[in-house]
Amino acid sequence: MIERRLTELLRQVAAGETSPEDALQRLGNYPVEALEFAQVDHLRPLAQGFPEVVFCEGKTPEQVVEICASLERSSGMFLATRASAAMQQALRARYPRCEVHERARTVFLPPDPPVPPTGSGVILVVTAGTSDQPVAEEAAVVARAMGNRVETLMDVGVAGIHRLLRRSEELRRASVVIVVAGMDGALASVVGGLVRVPVIAVPTSVGYGASFGGVAALLAMLNSCASGVVVVNIDNGFGAAAAASRISHRQDSE
Amino acid sequence: MIERRLTELLRQVAAGETSPEDALQRLGNYPVEALEFAQVDHLRPLAQGFPEVVFCEGKTPEQVVEICASLERSSGMFLATRASAAMQQALRARYPRCEVHERARTVFLPPDPPVPPTGSGVILVVTAGTSDQPVAEEAAVVARAMGNRVETLMDVGVAGIHRLLRRSEELRRASVVIVVAGMDGALASVVGGLVRVPVIAVPTSVGYGASFGGVAALLAMLNSCASGVVVVNIDNGFGAAAAASRISHRQDSE
Amino acid sequence: MIERRLTELLRQVAAGETSPEDALQRLGNYPVEALEFAQVDHLRPLAQGFPEVVFCEGKTPEQVVEICASLERSSGMFLATRASAAMQQALRARYPRCEVHERARTVFLPPDPPVPPTGSGVILVVTAGTSDQPVAEEAAVVARAMGNRVETLMDVGVAGIHRLLRRSEELRRASVVIVVAGMDGALASVVGGLVRVPVIAVPTSVGYGASFGGVAALLAMLNSCASGVVVVNIDNGFGAAAAASRISHRQDSE
Amino acid sequence: MIERRLTELLRQVAAGETSPEDALQRLGNYPVEALEFAQVDHLRPLAQGFPEVVFCEGKTPEQVVEICASLERSSGMFLATRASAAMQQALRARYPRCEVHERARTVFLPPDPPVPPTGSGVILVVTAGTSDQPVAEEAAVVARAMGNRVETLMDVGVAGIHRLLRRSEELRRASVVIVVAGMDGALASVVGGLVRVPVIAVPTSVGYGASFGGVAALLAMLNSCASGVVVVNIDNGFGAAAAASRISHRQDSE
Amino acid sequence: MIERRLTELLRQVAAGETSPEDALQRLGNYPVEALEFAQVDHLRPLAQGFPEVVFCEGKTPEQVVEICASLERSSGMFLATRASAAMQQALRARYPRCEVHERARTVFLPPDPPVPPTGSGVILVVTAGTSDQPVAEEAAVVARAMGNRVETLMDVGVAGIHRLLRRSEELRRASVVIVVAGMDGALASVVGGLVRVPVIAVPTSVGYGASFGGVAALLAMLNSCASGVVVVNIDNGFGAAAAASRISHRQDSE
Amino acid sequence: MIERRLTELLRQVAAGETSPEDALQRLGNYPVEALEFAQVDHLRPLAQGFPEVVFCEGKTPEQVVEICASLERSSGMFLATRASAAMQQALRARYPRCEVHERARTVFLPPDPPVPPTGSGVILVVTAGTSDQPVAEEAAVVARAMGNRVETLMDVGVAGIHRLLRRSEELRRASVVIVVAGMDGALASVVGGLVRVPVIAVPTSVGYGASFGGVAALLAMLNSCASGVVVVNIDNGFGAAAAASRISHRQDSE
Amino acid sequence: MIERRLTELLRQVAAGETSPEDALQRLGNYPVEALEFAQVDHLRPLAQGFPEVVFCEGKTPEQVVEICASLERSSGMFLATRASAAMQQALRARYPRCEVHERARTVFLPPDPPVPPTGSGVILVVTAGTSDQPVAEEAAVVARAMGNRVETLMDVGVAGIHRLLRRSEELRRASVVIVVAGMDGALASVVGGLVRVPVIAVPTSVGYGASFGGVAALLAMLNSCASGVVVVNIDNGFGAAAAASRISHRQDSE
Amino acid sequence: MIERRLTELLRQVAAGETSPEDALQRLGNYPVEALEFAQVDHLRPLAQGFPEVVFCEGKTPEQVVEICASLERSSGMFLATRASAAMQQALRARYPRCEVHERARTVFLPPDPPVPPTGSGVILVVTAGTSDQPVAEEAAVVARAMGNRVETLMDVGVAGIHRLLRRSEELRRASVVIVVAGMDGALASVVGGLVRVPVIAVPTSVGYGASFGGVAALLAMLNSCASGVVVVNIDNGFGAAAAASRISHRQDSE
Repeated sequence: MIERRLTELLRQVAAGETSPEDALQRLGNYPVEALEFAQVDHLRPLAQGFPEVVFCEGKTPEQVVEICASLERSSGMFLATRASAAMQQALRARYPRCEVHERARTVFLPPDPPVPPTGSGVILVVTAGTSDQPVAEEAAVVARAMGNRVETLMDVGVAGIHRLLRRSEELRRASVVIVVAGMDGALASVVGGLVRVPVIAVPTSVGYGASFGGVAALLAMLNSCASGVVVVNIDNGFGAAAAASRISHRQDSE
Repeated sequence: MIERRLTELLRQVAAGETSPEDALQRLGNYPVEALEFAQVDHLRPLAQGFPEVVFCEGKTPEQVVEICASLERSSGMFLATRASAAMQQALRARYPRCEVHERARTVFLPPDPPVPPTGSGVILVVTAGTSDQPVAEEAAVVARAMGNRVETLMDVGVAGIHRLLRRSEELRRASVVIVVAGMDGALASVVGGLVRVPVIAVPTSVGYGASFGGVAALLAMLNSCASGVVVVNIDNGFGAAAAASRISHRQDSE
Repeated sequence: MIERRLTELLRQVAAGETSPEDALQRLGNYPVEALEFAQVDHLRPLAQGFPEVVFCEGKTPEQVVEICASLERSSGMFLATRASAAMQQALRARYPRCEVHERARTVFLPPDPPVPPTGSGVILVVTAGTSDQPVAEEAAVVARAMGNRVETLMDVGVAGIHRLLRRSEELRRASVVIVVAGMDGALASVVGGLVRVPVIAVPTSVGYGASFGGVAALLAMLNSCASGVVVVNIDNGFGAAAAASRISHRQDSE
Repeated sequence: MIERRLTELLRQVAAGETSPEDALQRLGNYPVEALEFAQVDHLRPLAQGFPEVVFCEGKTPEQVVEICASLERSSGMFLATRASAAMQQALRARYPRCEVHERARTVFLPPDPPVPPTGSGVILVVTAGTSDQPVAEEAAVVARAMGNRVETLMDVGVAGIHRLLRRSEELRRASVVIVVAGMDGALASVVGGLVRVPVIAVPTSVGYGASFGGVAALLAMLNSCASGVVVVNIDNGFGAAAAASRISHRQDSE
Repeated sequence: MIERRLTELLRQVAAGETSPEDALQRLGNYPVEALEFAQVDHLRPLAQGFPEVVFCEGKTPEQVVEICASLERSSGMFLATRASAAMQQALRARYPRCEVHERARTVFLPPDPPVPPTGSGVILVVTAGTSDQPVAEEAAVVARAMGNRVETLMDVGVAGIHRLLRRSEELRRASVVIVVAGMDGALASVVGGLVRVPVIAVPTSVGYGASFGGVAALLAMLNSCASGVVVVNIDNGFGAAAAASRISHRQDSE
Repeated sequence: MIERRLTELLRQVAAGETSPEDALQRLGNYPVEALEFAQVDHLRPLAQGFPEVVFCEGKTPEQVVEICASLERSSGMFLATRASAAMQQALRARYPRCEVHERARTVFLPPDPPVPPTGSGVILVVTAGTSDQPVAEEAAVVARAMGNRVETLMDVGVAGIHRLLRRSEELRRASVVIVVAGMDGALASVVGGLVRVPVIAVPTSVGYGASFGGVAALLAMLNSCASGVVVVNIDNGFGAAAAASRISHRQDSE
Repeated sequence: MIERRLTELLRQVAAGETSPEDALQRLGNYPVEALEFAQVDHLRPLAQGFPEVVFCEGKTPEQVVEICASLERSSGMFLATRASAAMQQALRARYPRCEVHERARTVFLPPDPPVPPTGSGVILVVTAGTSDQPVAEEAAVVARAMGNRVETLMDVGVAGIHRLLRRSEELRRASVVIVVAGMDGALASVVGGLVRVPVIAVPTSVGYGASFGGVAALLAMLNSCASGVVVVNIDNGFGAAAAASRISHRQDSE
Repeated sequence: MIERRLTELLRQVAAGETSPEDALQRLGNYPVEALEFAQVDHLRPLAQGFPEVVFCEGKTPEQVVEICASLERSSGMFLATRASAAMQQALRARYPRCEVHERARTVFLPPDPPVPPTGSGVILVVTAGTSDQPVAEEAAVVARAMGNRVETLMDVGVAGIHRLLRRSEELRRASVVIVVAGMDGALASVVGGLVRVPVIAVPTSVGYGASFGGVAALLAMLNSCASGVVVVNIDNGFGAAAAASRISHRQDSE
C-alpha cells in the first residue's frame, strides 16, 4: 500500500509531473506510513497466522463478542482469555463451534479446517498442586491454540519429591517446560535442575497469609537456584504459553 | 536467694521473732521476688546449666568482655554470637581456652571439665549453598554449646536434587533438622517432605536483587508446601539452634 | 511393586535367564521406581497411620468429597481443613460419623474404633484474644486428629499480663506450646520467656489497618526477643499442629 | 474578638485618641503580619522558654555550630540532636559548659543559671534491651532539657517478664511512660497494660533480617493490644520526649 | 483472698502448726496468686469506673449482646465499637436506653444516673475531610464515654489552609487535639505546629491508589515535621480517644 | 503593600473621610478574616469561575445531591466525580440538563449559557489500552468542564509502537499530554520522548498479580527515562486534568 | 541531513539519473532514516538550543569529561547532574569557565555569549527544610540552565505555617512552583492550596526510620488533598526542573 | 561408579556368589546411588561440555581460585561471575590465558583449543542506557562462554524511540533477545512488540529513589504489555544468558 504510493510518487517525479520539492514535501507527510511500511516486515502476528488474543477482564460481554467477531471475520479464528461465565456463554451462543474451557476461563475458535501444530517439539506444563490447575490449563489451551503440541504433568509438588522424579521420562521428552506453582514456588528450582531445556516459571496466587497473593512464589522463582529459569507475572498462564510459543517457533525468525 | 530470705522470714515467725502481721507486710512488699521465686522453677536457664547467650551486635568489645566475664564468674562458661573480629580477639586474649569460630562469628568458653551432651538425638544442620555456611555454623556451634549432638550436611541445594537424595541416610538419622537456605529457600520444602522429624527453616540473606536480603527465602519457607515446617528470622542460626535445643531437651519438662 | 520387579529381575540373573549386562540396562531404566522403593521407608505418612490432609480452599465441594472418600476407602479416616459450610454439609451428609468443627472449618472422620494418642506429652494451644479462636481451634483439632493430647488456654493476651501468669500451672504442664495471636503478636515472646519447651507461634490476620492482614504479628514473632521461638504462616493453625505433632512423635524416628 | 478590637481601635483613631501612626503600629501585626501577630500567642516555643531544637543530620559541623551560636545568643541555651562526633567536639570546643551525651548523640547547653523543671510529674523511659539505650538516652536528655523530671528503667524486655514486674513500683510512680524497644516491640503492650498513664512507644531499629530496620517493632506497636498506646517514628527518641513534654506541660495551655 | 491465705499460713507457722519448711513449700506453690495480689493495685480499669470496651469485629451479634449484658450487670454500662448494623439493632432492642452512633458504629450504654466528666480539659477532634468523619466520631463518642469533654472541628483540610486558621480560637481552647486525616495526612503537621498541647494523629483509610488503605497518611504522620506528634493505627479512632483519655486523666495516677 | 493600604485607610478615618463602620467593613477581611481577605486573591477557584469539584466516594447519594445543589445555587454549575450509578441517577433526576458520563463516573452540570474554553491550547489524553478508558474519560470530562479543549488518542500501547507513531500529528498538536496507562506504564516514557510539551502520567490499576493495583505502572512512571514526565496518583484522572488545567490557564496568574 | 539525501534522490529521479524502481529500493532501505526525518521536527532538543543533560551517576570521571567535551564541541555548552567531587574537579580543570554547584552536584557550562531566558514567567523553588536544599538547588540550577528565570523560597515547612504564609507575595508571583520536601511532604498540599499555577512536588529522602528514604513524602504527595499537584521521583530535582521548563516553554509547541 | 557397583553385584548374582534375596537387600540400600546413576543422563552439564559456573559473591579470593582450579583440572576451562578486583587479579595471576572482563566482573578461561559456538542463531543483548552495560556485558560474556554467538545493541532507551527503530535490522537478525534496562524498564515492552523471537528481560538496579534498587523495572517487565516477555532477577545478566543458552541449545534435547 505504502509501496504503491511511493512508486506512484516517484513515477510522477520521473515523469516531471511532480517537482522534487513537492515530492519532498509529500514524503515529509508520510513518516508514519513510511514507518508502517518498514515495520510490516517485523510486526507480523506473533505466531504466524495467529490473530491478537483478547484479554477479557475489564470488558463487557458485548465488547468481547464484538472484538471476537471482528477477529473471526478477518482471520476465521479467535482466542479469548480470562472470560467470565457470561462471556463464555455469549461466545458459545454465537459460535457453537468454539471450544470453551471453563476452568481455564478461555474460549477458542479454532481455524476451520484445523491447522496442524507449527511449533517444534513439545511444551510440557507441570503443576505443583491441584489448585494451580486453572492457570496451568490457561497455559495449555493458549499454547495449543498458538500451534504447539502440549503435554501436562499435574500435582507433582516437591513436598513429595518422588512424585516428580517418577515422571522423569516425561520431563525428558519436553522441549520447553512451563512450571506452574504457588505457595513456595519450589517446583521451578527442582525442575530447572532436572532438565536442560528452557523452563518458564509461572507463580500462582494459590496460598494465603504470607503468600501475599503469589508474591512468595514469584520471589522464590526470581531467585531460583537453578540457573536460567525465567519468570512471568503471577497467574499469567497466557504469558508463559506465549513465551513458550516464541521459543518453539523460534527457527521461523532466522 | 529468694528462697533463703523466705526461709529466714518463716523461721523468724516460727521463732516468734516476727509477728504474722509483720511477716505479711514484708511478704506484701515482695510480690516480684515471690514471682521470681515461683519462676525459678520454669525460668531456669533454657538448657539446664546454660547461662544467657551474649548477642554482641550493638555492643562495644569492652562491654562484650565485661558481660562474658560476669557470666564466666557465675557459671564458668559463656557463649557470644555475632562477635566482631575485635571482640573475638579480646575474648581470646582474656580466655585463651575459649573456642573462636571466625566464620560463625561465635566465641564459646566451654565448661571445664566438659559436660557430655544433654539433648536427646542428633540435630542435623543442612545447607543449600556454600554462602549459607556462616549461618549454618552459627547454628551448629550454638546447638553444640547448648548440649546437643550436631551433624552437618553442606551444599545440597535443590538445583541438583541428587546431591540431597544421595544423603538420605544422614537425613534419616536426624531427630531434628535445621535447613539453612537463601535465594529461593526451596530446600526446606524438599527436606520437609523427606523426613518426619521436626524441620526448622532458616532463611539467609544470601542472594541479590529480588531476594531482598532474604525476604524471598523467608516467604518461601513460610509458604512451604511441606506441612509442619517452622521458620525463624533471616540469618538467625542462633534462634534455630535454640529452637532445636528446646526440642531435644523437651522430655525434661514433663 | 518395585520390589516384586526387582526380585524377578534378580531371579532371572541368578537363573542365567538374563545376563548381568541386560539386567544393568533394565535397572538403568528404573531410576524412579528404584527411588520410590527406597523412599517408601522414609516417606511414610507424617504421623504413622495418618493419611494426607485435605486442604479444601480452591476446590469444589464435589472434589473435596471425592478426595475424602478416596482417603476413607484406603485408610478408614480423613481430615479436611478450610472446609466451607457447603463442604462441611456435604461431608456430614455422606459420613454422618464425621466430626465437623464449624469455627475451625475442619471436618474429621476419626478411625473406627478410635486410636489412643500416639504423641508424647501435651500440646498446649494458647490464644491472645477471642478473635484468634478459629485458628486456635484448627490447630487443636488437627493436633488431636494427628494423635496428640491437646489442651487450650484462651484469651490470655499480654495487655492483661496477669491473666497469663495466673495460668502458669497449665503452661508448665505443656510439652509443646502453640501460641496463636494477631495484632502485635506479643504473646509469643512472653510465653517463650516463661517456658523451656518448644514454642510455635502462629500469627493471625486479626486486626486492621497497619496489621496488614497479620504481617505485623508475623514480623513481631519472627523478631521475638525470646530465643528459640519458631513461626508458621499467618492463620496457619494446621501447620503449627503438624509441627507440634512432628515434635511429639519425634522419638519414633530414632 | 478581633472585630471588637478593630472596632475599638478605629473608634480611637476617628476620635483622635490614637494617631494613625500608632494604630498602624498596633495593626502592624496584621494581615500576613496580622497572622503572625495572632499566632505569637499560640506559636510560642513548645516548652516555654525553650528554643528550637537543632536536628544535626544532613548539616555540616560548621552549620551546626553557627545555628547553635545563634540560638545561644538569643536564648542563652541550645539543644542539638543526632550530632556526630565532629559536631560534638566542635560545640564542646566553643561552649565548654555544654553537656555532651555521646551515646545519645546530643549536645545541650543548659540555661545559666539552671531552671528548675517546669513539667508536672515524672517521665519514665523504659527500654527492652541494652541496644535500645542510645535512643532511650536521647529521649531522656531531650525530656530533661525541655524542663521535665525523668527517670529510667533499663533492660526489662518481656522475654524475662519478671524483670519488668519486679519494677512495678517505678512504673506506678510515672506520670508518662516512654517505652523504647526494637525487635518485637512487645514491651509497649505489656507496659500499656500495666499502667493507666499515657504510654508513648518508640520502635528502634535494633534487630536484623525481618526486623526491617525497626518496621517489625513499629507495626507491633501500632497494633498494640493495650488500648491507648501511641507511637512515634523509628528511633525517634526526640519525638517521644517532645510528646511527653507536651503532656507534662499540658496544664499551661488551659 | 491471697492475703487471707497468707495470713492463715503465717498464723500457723507462728502457732507451730506448720513448720517453716512446709510453709516454704506451700508458698512455692502460690506464685501466681501472689502476683495477682500484688497487681490488684495497678491493674485497675483504665479510666476509673470504666469497664472493658467491646471490640465487635470478628464476633457474632449474639456474642456481642452477651458480653455487653455481662458488662451491664457488673458495671451498669458498656461501650461497643465497630458494631455492625445487626449488632446495633440487637443492642438497641435489649437496651432501649443505649446511644447508637451509626456512622461511628458504636453503641454506648451510659451509667444511670449519668456521671459528670472526670477528665480535665477539652479533647478537640479535628478532621481533614468529610470522609474522615466516621473515624472522628468514633474517637469523639469513645472519649465522651470515657468521661471527657469533647469538641469537634470538621473539614479543615490543609488544601484550604484558611479554613483551619480561621478556627484558631477553638484550637487554642483544646487541652488535647486528635487529628483525623486520610490521603496525605498533612493536617497533623500543620496542627502540630499551631498548638503546644498533645497532638494525637489518626491516619484514616480514606483515599485510593497509592494511599494504600491509609499507609500514606500513616507514614506522613510518623514523619511529621512538627515535633511531638504521636500516632495510632489506621482508622483507630478508639485508640486515639483512649490515649487522649489517658492524658486527660493523668493527674489521677500521681 | 498591605501596609500602604492600611495607612491610607487609617488616615481617612482620622480625617473623617471614612467612618469607622466603613473602615471596619473594609478591614472586615482581616486578621483571621484578614488572612481570608488576603487569600481571596490567590485562593480563587482553581479555574476561574469554577466551583469546588465533588468527590463522591464515601458519601451517600443524598449527601452528593445536597452538595451539588448547593454548588448549583451559588455558581449555576457543578462537577461530581466517582459517582455511583445511584448518584448518577439521583443527579439526573433533579438536573435533567446535566451530562452523565457512565464509564467515567462523572456528572457535570455545565453553566447555562455555555462558556467557551478559557484554557489555552489543547489537552491530549492518550491511553495504552481499552481498559484504561474509564480513567482517561474522567480526565477528559474534568478537563473540558474546567474550560479546556480536549482531544483523545486511544489504545496506542507500546507493544505495537507503530500505532502510536502513526499518530504523531495529533501528538504534535497537543500543548499538554495526559498519558493514561496501566500494567508496565511504558507509554509515558515513549510519549515523553516524542513531545516537548508537558506530559502528565496517570498510572491505572489495570492489570493483575505483580501490577499490585497499579503500583508497577506508578513506579515505572516515576522512573521514566524521559525527563520531565510528572505523575499523579493511580487512577487519578481527575488530578491529571486539574494539573493540565493549571498549566493551560497558567498565563492568568502572572 | 536526511532531508538533503531525499532531495538529492528525488533530483536524480527527476533528472532521469535514477529510475523510480531504484529510488523505491533505496527508499525501502531507509525506513529508519525516514522516521528520523519525520521526527526531526518533534524530537528537537527539549528546550530549544539545549543539548542532552549528562546524568553522571554510574559513570567514571573520564567518561563524564568525554561526554561533556563532545557536547561542548557540538553545542558550546553542557549540563552535568549528580557529579561527584572528582567529576566536578575534572570538569572545572578542563573548562575553567564552567559553573560548579557543589551542594547541587551539578556542573554547567553556559553558552558564550550567554543566552537570555527563553521560558515565560518565573519558576519558584520552595523547600520545607534546610536538608532539602541540595535537591532544591539541583532543580534551580537545571531550570536556569534550561533557559528559565528562577526564584527560591527556603525553609518554609508547614510546622511553622506562618513562615510560609508571610511569603504569599512571592508565591503569587510564580508561574510554576516546585515544592521540595522530605519527611511528611505536607508542604506540597499547603502550597497546592495557596496557588493556582502548576505545582510540581519533589519528595526528598530527608528523614529516617519510617520515611523509608523518601517514600513517606512520595506517598503523601501522590495523595495530596490539593487537586492538580503532580509528582516526580524522590530527590529528582532535575526532573522537576525539566517538567517546569516544559511548562514555561509550552507556547513554543503550538 | 554406581554402574561399576551394580555390574559387580549382578555378576555375583549371575555367578551364584550372592543370592537374589541378598542382592535385593543391598539394592534396597542404594536408592540414591541408583538415582544418581539414572540421573547421569539428564543431569549433564547445562550446556554440553560446560562446567558449573562459579558465583563469586560471598566467597574469599582463595576459595574462588581453588574452585576454579578444580574446574580447570577436570574440564580445562572455568567461568567465574561477580568476581571482585582481587579475585580477577588472583585468577589472572594463576591463569594468564584467562579473559578478564572488568566491567562485567567475569573471568573466563576458555577451552584450549577454542570450541566453535554450539548454540543455534544469534543472541542479541540490548541495553537502555550506558549504566546498564555492566549487566549486559555479564550476559554477553556468559552467553559466549556457553557456546553462543552474541551481538549487542547499546543505549537504545525508549525516551528516544528512533534510536531503537533505526536498528530494526539488527533486531530482526536475532534469534533470542536479552533486554537489559533499569529505571522504567519500558524497553522490554517495546522490543517485545517489535520481534517475534523469545525476549528475556533483565531489570537492572540502575536508578534511585522509587526505582527501589530495580524493583520498578522488575515490576514493569513482569507486567509487560507485550505478550510472552519473560523476566529474570534484578541485575541477573548471568541468568538471562543461561536462559538464552537453554533456548539456543534447545534442539539438543529432543
